[in-house]
Amino acid sequence: MRSKGYAALTAKASLTPYEFDRRELKANDVALTTQFAGICHSDIHQAREEWGPSIFPMVPGHEIAGIVTEVGSAVTKFKVGDRIGIGVFVDSCKKCEACLKGLGNYCYENMTATYNSMERDGKSPTMGGYSDSFVVDADYAVKIPGNLEMSGVAPLMCAGITLYSPLRHWQAGPGMKVGIIGLGGLGHMGVKFSAALGAETTVFSHSPHKKDDALAMGADHFVSTADHSVFAGMKPEFDLILNTVSAEIDLNPYLELLKLDGTLVMIGLSGKQYPISAGGLLQKRRSLAGSQIGGVPELQEMLDFCGTHNIVSDVEIVKAEYINQAYERTIASDVKYRFVIDAATF
Amino acid sequence: MRSKGYAALTAKASLTPYEFDRRELKANDVALTTQFAGICHSDIHQAREEWGPSIFPMVPGHEIAGIVTEVGSAVTKFKVGDRIGIGVFVDSCKKCEACLKGLGNYCYENMTATYNSMERDGKSPTMGGYSDSFVVDADYAVKIPGNLEMSGVAPLMCAGITLYSPLRHWQAGPGMKVGIIGLGGLGHMGVKFSAALGAETTVFSHSPHKKDDALAMGADHFVSTADHSVFAGMKPEFDLILNTVSAEIDLNPYLELLKLDGTLVMIGLSGKQYPISAGGLLQKRRSLAGSQIGGVPELQEMLDFCGTHNIVSDVEIVKAEYINQAYERTIASDVKYRFVIDAATF
Repeated sequence: MRSKGYAALTAKASLTPYEFDRRELKANDVALTTQFAGICHSDIHQAREEWGPSIFPMVPGHEIAGIVTEVGSAVTKFKVGDRIGIGVFVDSCKKCEACLKGLGNYCYENMTATYNSMERDGKSPTMGGYSDSFVVDADYAVKIPGNLEMSGVAPLMCAGITLYSPLRHWQAGPGMKVGIIGLGGLGHMGVKFSAALGAETTVFSHSPHKKDDALAMGADHFVSTADHSVFAGMKPEFDLILNTVSAEIDLNPYLELLKLDGTLVMIGLSGKQYPISAGGLLQKRRSLAGSQIGGVPELQEMLDFCGTHNIVSDVEIVKAEYINQAYERTIASDVKYRFVIDAATF
Repeated sequence: MRSKGYAALTAKASLTPYEFDRRELKANDVALTTQFAGICHSDIHQAREEWGPSIFPMVPGHEIAGIVTEVGSAVTKFKVGDRIGIGVFVDSCKKCEACLKGLGNYCYENMTATYNSMERDGKSPTMGGYSDSFVVDADYAVKIPGNLEMSGVAPLMCAGITLYSPLRHWQAGPGMKVGIIGLGGLGHMGVKFSAALGAETTVFSHSPHKKDDALAMGADHFVSTADHSVFAGMKPEFDLILNTVSAEIDLNPYLELLKLDGTLVMIGLSGKQYPISAGGLLQKRRSLAGSQIGGVPELQEMLDFCGTHNIVSDVEIVKAEYINQAYERTIASDVKYRFVIDAATF
């Protein structure tokens, strides 16, 4: 199937229009017309080869919302016209302990990423969502509730699930105090989910001007960390804190805010090592954990939850030709709160 | 009550014989004759003022096994002649969330340590187990099963519970793979408990000559980390790894050995910060946690478990006059696996 999109041809290049072939439908595949594709910071890292060797030409994009145009002979889950989403991975081994638990994101033989990865045959590079069409194994696509705006759904497929999964895994809910560090593409989804799950939600941000947005999204409290002394006046009362910041930050003051058996979950990564005072972990049997996107059953659960609570990402819709500018603005954190590309403009 | 023991009079001094008064029995107190007092590495750190300011004169010791000689008017839990143990703390606020859960070791108003601490009145320094008698609130003492040798019981009160508590909290048992880093006073208790709980147990040690001991204590596998390349050949298959080493070690290779949702628990502390690669945490939703001794109900549960499984610490019994030499040998890891002082020699 012929597909039109945008690609990075080399690590140094701006993204440019690019045409390529996707595979013909296999029995369990579905084809879709892309409607919106989110721009994730990890697209930029990979397109610029900042995370080790990349595969070029690269069509980035792993936050995809579209409409089914064709289904393979074995597909019963979807039909033509369905609104579906595709996230960060499009295949996994389907046999390991993680896959059998519906957690292909933790596949022991590694997930197949939606782009900048090789299909499991080891021969064909995957091509991502910055394109007008897509072909995917139906096991890795999920249904989008009818009441949700497609543009705001696209970022749920990465930014959304990345926050939803740890909030559910560590059982955020009524009676719990949850902290979200950073109010960006990831953090703003964390606030919406944490509040909708009924947890008392605090945003930690070094940008005091984000306070109004945080409260409007459902946060109960806003802590400006621009003044670092703010930690000294706080009690160890958080059950769960999610760090969505990819800049280097000192985690130890946040560990000290956790109550007995509390957990600080890493989601954003600086790429550098974090110095941890183990004494802070011992004191209240605290944990520092990590979480990486989420599995396909969780993706569906999240979209159903979003349908019920009418949650989508706050987005700025841009045309394909704006991608390179959107990249610069994403790096500068100058977006409220996620760019999505209108796929009609590819 | 007059008590004879050994004390550090200053941070620079060797320990010397020392007589002092303990409080008269309050209604909920019990008095005991000490039989054995374990030597814990933390005694040395505190007697030498290596962990911040200490209170002198200091009678160290928080691994105490003795016989009840007198009970206060309100005590129903113990009677004269009972064999009882006292561990790392002798009081706590009794009101906070941690105390109400039986976890006074995590008291939000801080536990009162068995020595080098102030009673909750803020006036009287606590004096530890290197002495022929002791007075303690009955709520902080536990009963010792009749079949256990008292000398081997003393170290259970710190080294034992420090390993038993995290093994139970993270549910070590049949079908689980548990790793113990380090085979010293702490680690050897971890091996015995993990094996008795039915977990497949692996010892990681940089001392290859400890292999026979590890297997004799119940370990299923022994990994010599003297050759660091050993990690490369290992799979991510551990549910739980306990780090008992107080020297600086690189935790990241151990994090990589954890399976999905596995936990590395810090017990030993180097005093320095540990550089952590958060990517290793994200990959399999792993956790790095801390654990600090255990609560009084857990202490009793542990002693009952030890009674059932006939578990005690491996000890070298020494006279009081040998304490300073025992300190040097403890620092040099030249002990199998814990020194206990015969309290009849004070």
